[in-house]
Amino acid sequence: MTTATRLGRLGEEIIDRGLEGLFVTTLVNVRYLTGFTGSNGAVYVSGGGEAVFVTDGRYRDQAAAEVPDIEHVITRDLLGAMAERASGIELGIESHTLTVDAHARLAELLPSVALVPADRMVEHLRETKDAVEIDALRRACDISTRALLALLEGPLVGRTEREVARDLENRMFDLGAEAIAFETILAAGENTAIPHHHPTDRLLGTGDLLKVDFGARVDGYHADCTRTVVLGRADDWQREVHAAVRESQAAGLDLLREGVAVSDADASARGALEASGWLEAFTTGLGHGVGLEIHEDPFIAASHTGKLTSRTVLTMEPGIYVPGRGGVRIEDTVLVTPGAPEVLTTMTKDLLEIG
Amino acid sequence: MTTATRLGRLGEEIIDRGLEGLFVTTLVNVRYLTGFTGSNGAVYVSGGGEAVFVTDGRYRDQAAAEVPDIEHVITRDLLGAMAERASGIELGIESHTLTVDAHARLAELLPSVALVPADRMVEHLRETKDAVEIDALRRACDISTRALLALLEGPLVGRTEREVARDLENRMFDLGAEAIAFETILAAGENTAIPHHHPTDRLLGTGDLLKVDFGARVDGYHADCTRTVVLGRADDWQREVHAAVRESQAAGLDLLREGVAVSDADASARGALEASGWLEAFTTGLGHGVGLEIHEDPFIAASHTGKLTSRTVLTMEPGIYVPGRGGVRIEDTVLVTPGAPEVLTTMTKDLLEIG
Repeated sequence: MTTATRLGRLGEEIIDRGLEGLFVTTLVNVRYLTGFTGSNGAVYVSGGGEAVFVTDGRYRDQAAAEVPDIEHVITRDLLGAMAERASGIELGIESHTLTVDAHARLAELLPSVALVPADRMVEHLRETKDAVEIDALRRACDISTRALLALLEGPLVGRTEREVARDLENRMFDLGAEAIAFETILAAGENTAIPHHHPTDRLLGTGDLLKVDFGARVDGYHADCTRTVVLGRADDWQREVHAAVRESQAAGLDLLREGVAVSDADASARGALEASGWLEAFTTGLGHGVGLEIHEDPFIAASHTGKLTSRTVLTMEPGIYVPGRGGVRIEDTVLVTPGAPEVLTTMTKDLLEIG
Repeated sequence: MTTATRLGRLGEEIIDRGLEGLFVTTLVNVRYLTGFTGSNGAVYVSGGGEAVFVTDGRYRDQAAAEVPDIEHVITRDLLGAMAERASGIELGIESHTLTVDAHARLAELLPSVALVPADRMVEHLRETKDAVEIDALRRACDISTRALLALLEGPLVGRTEREVARDLENRMFDLGAEAIAFETILAAGENTAIPHHHPTDRLLGTGDLLKVDFGARVDGYHADCTRTVVLGRADDWQREVHAAVRESQAAGLDLLREGVAVSDADASARGALEASGWLEAFTTGLGHGVGLEIHEDPFIAASHTGKLTSRTVLTMEPGIYVPGRGGVRIEDTVLVTPGAPEVLTTMTKDLLEIG
């Protein structure tokens, strides 16, 4: 049982922290630990991993189907039901998401308990993916790249950014996506200079760069992929910028290995951009974990003090953005292993000249 | 200036509550007060309505464009920047959404200030819509109903729930929706008995009930509409259930007037279902406010102690759900006035027999 394994690991972590239990109130963490996909639920986990799942009456049937192996309480008073089952004098709370009001109510219900901020314990567990998760991520990435390849068969020139973005999304649905992973970023020409551009009515034209940052969601898991192509023949500037980003991405990807410091992967990708003279045109982050959330731990940054572990899934996405002119980003979702990372978004990174 | 008016009203409310300022950290409330549509921002509002808007460097240009008339601070430390500008000894916090960690940080930054839970002050202001908001809601509702009317021209029989749901969504985009307001609920046959059914690969067949709960989003504002039709000729049971829901909806709608107790509108719609013998088959809530959120205050319930005010926009959505057999829901988004409510989702509620 996947959820039993996850609860068991969390139970050990709870004990390691010197706590006797944890109130898991962050919905995505609840899903991770129980399988529950509804919009209102929580789970109390004891040191040792025993769990009580709570949700309201709307989700009675769904909870029975999705959470078969964990005790349920159906109630409108989620905190009350959890407090009743909790025992101990030092219990953890997810203080990074728990609201002040919810905290006040828990404190009132459990006056002799110390409610201890137990920051991101479940998020930390979620960094390392299990087989079920990797399979879902693989399928999401596969749908994504197949959809983009089909889209690039065209026609593209003469259609609007908005139309083409929707076309891509529809192709992901047709291939089995349950949802899109995030609002598609599809930018043409000078709009490619905007890192997180919203598609507009701008027409795609011959000679334009076309940047597409997109992904499918499958079983709750997100794919995240960016490719930048040229519509027609690439000019020298487009080739230069694309090559610089591609080198940077390769340099960063190469260090996404078990045991490597996250900050070293960051430095590697940045170093390549610095060597080609483009570092100042890179204005976003280099990458992030991907899983039940589109952006989750770990975030690739110079300030990150940790090392990469196998079975972490994350993105590497350097870019060059020149306001008014254009930009290029290349992004993959990859699986960290002891050796070279496994790229899940398997699609060429050659500069494609379309149509 | 719309945002100046909103800030002015909030400033007065802050004083009325005996506070000297409010930390507005709920993103949708920040949008309401400033116009900012990014994913990270906050605004400190003093008693009297002076405001300082804070966001991070990613949003420098967007903030300049969207929030032209309010002082900005660009920083990664939103709470720190707000705390620096706050003055007073009793300052409000949005305790229903502020996290325990953010609260702890504010308390550390402002050790001599009492941080007072000022529950849902902005949500309360948001219940009464201004002209700009009503216009956006009107456009969202108009797009929604036009899309459904076009969809119902068919063909429908032989296609899957999933396909038809996406077809409807694409039509809303084509008509100018910036997004769908929520995941479309489209159910055929026995699936109509599930109040919040997710579209499946079930084929639509002749004789089926078809229930569609959907809406477009325009300028951040959501439409919410449900119609239930029959594919082919309706049988007696379908007619009976549809008529009972329609009567209930009319009875509820009729009381959505300025000055009427919310609980009376609830009782009216329920009373009609009781009279027709179907009350037990109604298992959801009767309605909710609609605006920048798809579900917002006020929620129609027997326990609601308030009265309706003009310019509130909300839904009325009774239904009958018979597990294994089918169900009917009829829902409109309406604008409360001193007289009869103005129905924004203007589409017939006759039982349509399609194809």
